[in-house]
Amino acid sequence: MELTLKQIGEKAKAAEAAMRTLSTGEKNQALETAAELLIKRKDEILEANGRDLDNARGNGMPPALVDRLQLTEGRIGQMAEGLRQIAGLEDPIGEVLSMKRRPNGLVIGQKRVPLGVIGIIYESRPNVTADAFGLCFKAGNVVILRGGKDAIHSNRAITEVLKGALAECGLPDDAIQLITDTSHETAEEFMRLNQYVDVLIPRGGAGLIRTVVERSTVPVIETGTGNCHIYVDEGADLDMAVEIIFNAKTQRIGVCNACESLVVHEKEKDALLPKLAARLKEKNVELRGDAPSREACADIVPATEEDWGKEYLDYVLSIKTVSGIDEAIAHINRYNTGHSEAIITRDYDRSRRFLDEVDAAAVYVNASTRFTDGFEFGFGGEIGISTQKLHARGPMGLKELTSTKYVIYGNGQVRP
Amino acid sequence: MELTLKQIGEKAKAAEAAMRTLSTGEKNQALETAAELLIKRKDEILEANGRDLDNARGNGMPPALVDRLQLTEGRIGQMAEGLRQIAGLEDPIGEVLSMKRRPNGLVIGQKRVPLGVIGIIYESRPNVTADAFGLCFKAGNVVILRGGKDAIHSNRAITEVLKGALAECGLPDDAIQLITDTSHETAEEFMRLNQYVDVLIPRGGAGLIRTVVERSTVPVIETGTGNCHIYVDEGADLDMAVEIIFNAKTQRIGVCNACESLVVHEKEKDALLPKLAARLKEKNVELRGDAPSREACADIVPATEEDWGKEYLDYVLSIKTVSGIDEAIAHINRYNTGHSEAIITRDYDRSRRFLDEVDAAAVYVNASTRFTDGFEFGFGGEIGISTQKLHARGPMGLKELTSTKYVIYGNGQVRP
Repeated sequence: MELTLKQIGEKAKAAEAAMRTLSTGEKNQALETAAELLIKRKDEILEANGRDLDNARGNGMPPALVDRLQLTEGRIGQMAEGLRQIAGLEDPIGEVLSMKRRPNGLVIGQKRVPLGVIGIIYESRPNVTADAFGLCFKAGNVVILRGGKDAIHSNRAITEVLKGALAECGLPDDAIQLITDTSHETAEEFMRLNQYVDVLIPRGGAGLIRTVVERSTVPVIETGTGNCHIYVDEGADLDMAVEIIFNAKTQRIGVCNACESLVVHEKEKDALLPKLAARLKEKNVELRGDAPSREACADIVPATEEDWGKEYLDYVLSIKTVSGIDEAIAHINRYNTGHSEAIITRDYDRSRRFLDEVDAAAVYVNASTRFTDGFEFGFGGEIGISTQKLHARGPMGLKELTSTKYVIYGNGQVRP
Repeated sequence: MELTLKQIGEKAKAAEAAMRTLSTGEKNQALETAAELLIKRKDEILEANGRDLDNARGNGMPPALVDRLQLTEGRIGQMAEGLRQIAGLEDPIGEVLSMKRRPNGLVIGQKRVPLGVIGIIYESRPNVTADAFGLCFKAGNVVILRGGKDAIHSNRAITEVLKGALAECGLPDDAIQLITDTSHETAEEFMRLNQYVDVLIPRGGAGLIRTVVERSTVPVIETGTGNCHIYVDEGADLDMAVEIIFNAKTQRIGVCNACESLVVHEKEKDALLPKLAARLKEKNVELRGDAPSREACADIVPATEEDWGKEYLDYVLSIKTVSGIDEAIAHINRYNTGHSEAIITRDYDRSRRFLDEVDAAAVYVNASTRFTDGFEFGFGGEIGISTQKLHARGPMGLKELTSTKYVIYGNGQVRP
């Protein structure tokens, strides 16, 4: 019998109270146990995944999506390894961020505590079920998952295993719950479950994220799209520029920190663009540029206004020529999505201006935008990359899955 | 001619770019100038306020609300003094929260930056116009204000003065804008202006806040209601308890950090309640309690289930008897609003449990809940008290009006 969202919420609240006092050791043991059980019960997970795959193929799901849906022994091993790595991360809970004595003798401290109940809405990638649980759990949170309909059997099986691990460790197994009713109506109701859910994190494509932002009354952390630019400044090291652009564009296609647009100083375009075009030809990257860029290199096809705002997630790069740093910054601030932006420069003053004036979660000097990532930043894990400014901006690790609380020590103080 | 919200948004975005690079000195000079101009142009503000007051009285506005709407020379002086105090606060912008070198040589820093464009939705308290501007501006933000219809002439006049100060200092006067169309439709549109507004902060009563949370697609910081409890533990200093409860209940009525409910250990009720009732009688506080509390003191009238969840904002206190710390924590976590909670105790272990297990923005040992306030916490100002867990929790000062950005220094790094 399926639980109502209200029942799920009540169970989550009860588990939240228990989570508040778990020790780091208890949490790590549960994560290690979960990793073991995923391996031990892999046949059960693969069997459930097989049912999802059969349905998906029967419904004519495109091969790329079937691949995302598919679990293998290797992928289950990666899920387990991910949980072990999270067990190895430092526990963010309990850290005292500041503490001071006020003139009246009150001692006021600010302490890191769990966010509470985190809702994750995602598409048909069953590995998210274990990954999201791991990070949320380590930060002391209860997690309510609502995955895609196509992965329901896989998600059920993985959730059962994770619940089993919690129960085996004597912890409340309601610390992870899956919404098994994958109807549209239930998803809408979930997005308005303010009484029980402290924050919603949508993980998936732009459409999913827009829907959650649009419909949710629960606070949302938006993990967004990346229309990332690289600006090649006057006097830049052009060999460095070519290698950074090549890396940022082609090292992995289809990720939010890939470079989608080149902004080039008009005095460098003639030297840079033919060389860059030759390098990018190795990966058959299509170049779409403005008129001045096309004068510099015959391989470039015309760009339209639409190109400047586009996150291609493909072997395509737009090219905009500018007269200097002012125009470069203005162009980037107009068209970017607040994700990652880079300048290639040798100039001290312009490097500072770029870092200060470009409005994005991550701004780089002389490096590839592909580094915007929780692992590359040294967080040891990542629940997503926030492109909003509230609560968390940029890669979100364990700390971004916490809140704070003020603890105040008095000895009878009253307000005069 | 009135601007559309889109026009207001475009102007805000343009001003935002300029705000990003203002020095602390420029910001402080503008705040000092604004303070001077408020005094200098007080007649113009009082005249506009007079028109609002005439309309309000003509519409039969209750005297308490007329009082909130009314400006006097003294109140304008307070607004000016508030801006001067904000000029004296430390500038939060530019602080580097962390910086470290990664194994690949990238140096990654996290720097404090403005939130961007902040929307404030408030009721008919014209002083909020200057106060909210001051804090948002000092933290480098552009502010778009939407005040109550009843205060429109006052708000217009104050905004004109503040704009005049910015212009006089050579700063973009679109850093403060007032939405002069006070229709319901425009407010609704404002709450969905995600393209231009980074965060909305509603300031006002529970109804206003609920509406904004419910309707807004822009991220909201919820400043909420306070159903604050004080728990008197077994063995507590009862004289201290009486004075703290008297202070927290009666020092100021109608504020969110006032005590609304007493939770008392069953072994202390007989000694505490008659003494407390006598003290509270000085202010004619009505006591509503459960059966065991009524046995201890005849002045207590019966409480109903509804009382436990009630923020009275009045001379009323509910009283719940419990068998110990477990029941006290469970009761508080069930009925509180996540604002401020206090324990009066002499016991080390129970003080720790209360601090750890009670889920609220501020938890106290042996002090009045009335201290939950930006000034009392030493922030020098306050835009409100957040009762949500995302982004900010508890009193919000200048730091809570900022975001962060990652700045990354490389020398040619690409991702392998």
